[in-house]
Amino acid sequence: VAAPAPDPARFGTLAAFEAAAREFMAPAVLDYVAGGSWDEVTLAENSAAFRRYRFRPAVLSGVTTADLSTTILGRDAAVPLAVAPMAQQGWCHPDAELPAARAAAAAGWTFALSTLSTCSMEAVAAETALAGPGARWFQLYIQRDLALTRSLVERAAAAGYEAVVVTVDVPVLGYRGTDLRGVGLGERRGNFPPQGHDRTPPARGRTPLTWELIDEVRTWSGLPLVIKGLLTGEDAGRAVDHGAAGILVSNHGGRQLDRTPAAIDALGEVVGAVDGHAEVYLDGGVRRGLDVVLALALGARAVFVGRPILYALSVAGEAGVARALEIVRVETERAMVLLGAGSVRDLTPDRVQPSRG
Amino acid sequence: VAAPAPDPARFGTLAAFEAAAREFMAPAVLDYVAGGSWDEVTLAENSAAFRRYRFRPAVLSGVTTADLSTTILGRDAAVPLAVAPMAQQGWCHPDAELPAARAAAAAGWTFALSTLSTCSMEAVAAETALAGPGARWFQLYIQRDLALTRSLVERAAAAGYEAVVVTVDVPVLGYRGTDLRGVGLGERRGNFPPQGHDRTPPARGRTPLTWELIDEVRTWSGLPLVIKGLLTGEDAGRAVDHGAAGILVSNHGGRQLDRTPAAIDALGEVVGAVDGHAEVYLDGGVRRGLDVVLALALGARAVFVGRPILYALSVAGEAGVARALEIVRVETERAMVLLGAGSVRDLTPDRVQPSRG
Amino acid sequence: VAAPAPDPARFGTLAAFEAAAREFMAPAVLDYVAGGSWDEVTLAENSAAFRRYRFRPAVLSGVTTADLSTTILGRDAAVPLAVAPMAQQGWCHPDAELPAARAAAAAGWTFALSTLSTCSMEAVAAETALAGPGARWFQLYIQRDLALTRSLVERAAAAGYEAVVVTVDVPVLGYRGTDLRGVGLGERRGNFPPQGHDRTPPARGRTPLTWELIDEVRTWSGLPLVIKGLLTGEDAGRAVDHGAAGILVSNHGGRQLDRTPAAIDALGEVVGAVDGHAEVYLDGGVRRGLDVVLALALGARAVFVGRPILYALSVAGEAGVARALEIVRVETERAMVLLGAGSVRDLTPDRVQPSRG
Amino acid sequence: VAAPAPDPARFGTLAAFEAAAREFMAPAVLDYVAGGSWDEVTLAENSAAFRRYRFRPAVLSGVTTADLSTTILGRDAAVPLAVAPMAQQGWCHPDAELPAARAAAAAGWTFALSTLSTCSMEAVAAETALAGPGARWFQLYIQRDLALTRSLVERAAAAGYEAVVVTVDVPVLGYRGTDLRGVGLGERRGNFPPQGHDRTPPARGRTPLTWELIDEVRTWSGLPLVIKGLLTGEDAGRAVDHGAAGILVSNHGGRQLDRTPAAIDALGEVVGAVDGHAEVYLDGGVRRGLDVVLALALGARAVFVGRPILYALSVAGEAGVARALEIVRVETERAMVLLGAGSVRDLTPDRVQPSRG
Repeated sequence: VAAPAPDPARFGTLAAFEAAAREFMAPAVLDYVAGGSWDEVTLAENSAAFRRYRFRPAVLSGVTTADLSTTILGRDAAVPLAVAPMAQQGWCHPDAELPAARAAAAAGWTFALSTLSTCSMEAVAAETALAGPGARWFQLYIQRDLALTRSLVERAAAAGYEAVVVTVDVPVLGYRGTDLRGVGLGERRGNFPPQGHDRTPPARGRTPLTWELIDEVRTWSGLPLVIKGLLTGEDAGRAVDHGAAGILVSNHGGRQLDRTPAAIDALGEVVGAVDGHAEVYLDGGVRRGLDVVLALALGARAVFVGRPILYALSVAGEAGVARALEIVRVETERAMVLLGAGSVRDLTPDRVQPSRG
Repeated sequence: VAAPAPDPARFGTLAAFEAAAREFMAPAVLDYVAGGSWDEVTLAENSAAFRRYRFRPAVLSGVTTADLSTTILGRDAAVPLAVAPMAQQGWCHPDAELPAARAAAAAGWTFALSTLSTCSMEAVAAETALAGPGARWFQLYIQRDLALTRSLVERAAAAGYEAVVVTVDVPVLGYRGTDLRGVGLGERRGNFPPQGHDRTPPARGRTPLTWELIDEVRTWSGLPLVIKGLLTGEDAGRAVDHGAAGILVSNHGGRQLDRTPAAIDALGEVVGAVDGHAEVYLDGGVRRGLDVVLALALGARAVFVGRPILYALSVAGEAGVARALEIVRVETERAMVLLGAGSVRDLTPDRVQPSRG
Repeated sequence: VAAPAPDPARFGTLAAFEAAAREFMAPAVLDYVAGGSWDEVTLAENSAAFRRYRFRPAVLSGVTTADLSTTILGRDAAVPLAVAPMAQQGWCHPDAELPAARAAAAAGWTFALSTLSTCSMEAVAAETALAGPGARWFQLYIQRDLALTRSLVERAAAAGYEAVVVTVDVPVLGYRGTDLRGVGLGERRGNFPPQGHDRTPPARGRTPLTWELIDEVRTWSGLPLVIKGLLTGEDAGRAVDHGAAGILVSNHGGRQLDRTPAAIDALGEVVGAVDGHAEVYLDGGVRRGLDVVLALALGARAVFVGRPILYALSVAGEAGVARALEIVRVETERAMVLLGAGSVRDLTPDRVQPSRG
Repeated sequence: VAAPAPDPARFGTLAAFEAAAREFMAPAVLDYVAGGSWDEVTLAENSAAFRRYRFRPAVLSGVTTADLSTTILGRDAAVPLAVAPMAQQGWCHPDAELPAARAAAAAGWTFALSTLSTCSMEAVAAETALAGPGARWFQLYIQRDLALTRSLVERAAAAGYEAVVVTVDVPVLGYRGTDLRGVGLGERRGNFPPQGHDRTPPARGRTPLTWELIDEVRTWSGLPLVIKGLLTGEDAGRAVDHGAAGILVSNHGGRQLDRTPAAIDALGEVVGAVDGHAEVYLDGGVRRGLDVVLALALGARAVFVGRPILYALSVAGEAGVARALEIVRVETERAMVLLGAGSVRDLTPDRVQPSRG
């Protein structure tokens, strides 16, 4: 942990940050961040599944640069990219969520702050408001205390967060055999009053999660709701029926129910069921601009990157995250030009086919 | 073998018991227990096949806990789980079948006692009657001497066993190249008179196994018959025609004919052929609550666990087995809640799809 | 090579002989025997393909023993098994073809003698005539000199060989990068006059192989012709049209054209095309009685075993071969009983399905 | 790099040259030559995909030799084989492109010279004109300066190059994480004036590549155009519409967009779309005569070999390349005879089926 921070410019891939993170993260943190539930089948599949698709490039299209700009939830966005909500970034860096939030804002990425962040949502908002154009979203774990939950949403709206991402795949925690969560690591929950600090973790023993509860959450603010953590067309249809503005296809990075489909394999079914009535996003296993291009071509409006951000944060702080974000952007642009796609609108499903291998 | 028994609470997976068992089991016993026939293709497939299915979770279902209770052969059961019949548990523990039988009874699991048990069926019944609500079933190997066979069934009925599980996939033993069975290990057969001890093993040279013989066995007691060891729809239909109350889909843990389908791959065909006219169970390769949930979703009424029980028994006796049973139950409940299934009735085939990998 | 011959009874699998052969065969011989052409894709596939089929056992069929007897080319045969023709067995044993020929005869296997044998066909016939009931077939490589070729067939008929197996897949040798054939190993060709010994190898530069030539070969003796080395339905139909009594589906053990289908994968197409108008046999990758049962179920009349015979011969001479043949027979019988098949007639295609893995 | 050149006759496979090249190539050159873009999925697939096809040989066809002669773009060619264009062969040998060009000419292979060659196209033409019958083609990277580009084409025509191969899959370079291109290696660009030497590499910042530009290039000389680097039927149809005489199916050896299909997997779609209106060639992963035969059977008119030529060049100069070319030819002939194909016209799609593995 005492190794000097390396020059971020030396990193050319997210995998290089991941490899370097072994030297910069405490073992318990690395285990917590890198691991998944049960046999980690879904964890491994999330990344492997991307490599089972093949691109169909169009040559001589005249494309020499790629324009990544888009809109997300009706707002202009420089890139169709977001930092996934991840708890307790204080385990990875003394400034916790601030470095990644600032880097994301500067790069025009959407930054999703976890309910279980180390810093308070107000601190993150204040420290990043001037960092750049990227939007901030607030990820919501519904708490046992609904009034407390409502206050979180109200505070998020007040602090300028632009959407509420309700995580729906944690009615209980995924099974890890030995639950390493928090082993030797104190938690600091910036969004909760001090007396909340040592309570039964809000993530457990929670209020039953129902679609009706979603309806209620929707009334707590004017913010659009994004449902995070569904994987089927049936659930996607229900999300639309219950007023979701966005759906984040996710298996929680392979940390909840194992042996669920890889996120990229579930995307098409969700996009088909939603049929344009909400935006669809994806997280899970994104490590390459190629993954981003694939998800966009299969119908994602934006793509979330999770663990690699923590690796870059651990290795080189804000500059590390900034470099990681740049790598993803550059790879995505490069792949789009090679595919003959000058803008994200050109990324259509006919650019993709299954591999034969 | 002289290592002190570790604290069972330290074990979080069945695999951890299996790994630890290497230190607690005599090598010849480990070889015998862990091995399969021929090239062990089916042995490996039994477990691997489970990981080729994917779950389709339903989110926001309001499910916060899972009710595992069910009925098995018309009797209330706390869990849809059973300990598979396994011979000579005296090789794994000085008290032989008693620790696992007591732990199963206490946890509400059905316990199936092997014909080739170390303890007599009467001793097991007497020692476990007060241990808890779990049922006891008697597994029958049909002997060369039909009168002796009949007496086994009659004794089982008298001792309170609630079903007779007739194993039908051992007309001869599976081929192991070197037959390690009993190498350096004396057998003690508690269900047989002493003069039977050194005879030609009853498992071999047996009476021809026929469906007509099943009809006859059925008349020997009022106990329901479970046919153990079939893998096809054709045989399942015959089992129903011959009055089976239950069918245990099994390839004998990969110990008999190799290159038979994994049990979970054969389950659907059997369930379809039986069409509700008998209960269907499964054994073979179950190592995770995820496996249990999958088998229930594909139509199994109960799921049997085999080798892992012997590993836990070897490592930590009754407390080890109790912990192993608890792990399976907890994993199963956790997976069900994450799947959005509050009861075993909610586990339906539409919760499952093949993997794409 | 000087290691003392081990007790054959200690060997329980053909793989055990193969492993032991490393100590008993000269490296150049082992390379020659074990290797295949090009990248050895077909060599590896021959064995692997067998393990991609699954058996569908029938339980409670009343079968306790398996009767392997059959007829091959109209003659009673104790087993549906044969030793494949293999050249220069003198490289593996001082008595060359005699030990394997005697062991085969004694065990009721058909023994196919190579044109390129170390011993003369007359010597093999004389030395094995009294060894047992197994038939002897003569494998024919058509020579540049047709008169010489005809004399080989006439001598085979005179010496009591019961069929001529014409190898048709060696118009040239398969490519091995470095052709190890004969490296440091003198050849002795017992079927050729001494002046033939150092000539251009008859296996090369051969007469063009045509179907018309097959018609001619057929007139040279009254012996039935078996065409060895075809893999497609089209060629199988031609073989029937040209009077073949038998067809040996083979890719020459992966030694000729690489990336041809595994023999077992080609079998069904050939059996379908032949439609009962000739017998169909198989060689390539048979290492287990399970392989034999599978090939018989898919329509083979007999199954040939090749390399494992040379391994057993190298390790323990005639006793080794006898043990190898016994292993195959015992495994085959065991598998048949477990499958519920009391005779080879019971081995039908419905006993088999593709694996899902 | 100072190791003495080995005897080329000792090499029996292209893989042997590749293995030996590790001792003869500078590490940075080896990295540059051997590597691909991103995760090298396509790089690995290019070769692996060939091994997923199976041959259907025809026996007794009377074929004893294979005639490889054909026509390419209307000109007689001794073999349906070509050396792929590869930049900066001066990194592999002091005489740069001359040894491979001479060896190709002598062996009747077509030699494609890269725009980015070390030697000038005129020097290569002059030094190889008398070496043999093989044709020379000029590979064109369209430069930012169209007048300069046109002059390249005009010079190629004047120097006797017989076709212009326009590479269309490099609108930007593929992503390599760390771009190793030229690391520690000076470039010398023989086709450009000296003042061009240190400019922004012509391969980048290039004129937008469009189909209309292809129309223009076609007017610059009377040479037939070959479009190199497309992978889909749609693009192939456009190439025909824009007057391409040939199409070289290629993913740039896995160096441009990763996760594109293996060249051999894309071939059939292109051949179908072209429907005889242009010749179709293939490069990517060819390492065996078996690969050549497969590509020809699936409709390729000629097959290009790339990296192995550089390995042979590095190891043993012109004699090494000559040996590599001979290996490919001999393997191809051998495979054709074994397949029962006496000429390239006999290589039809019915000789091929997918593997089952």
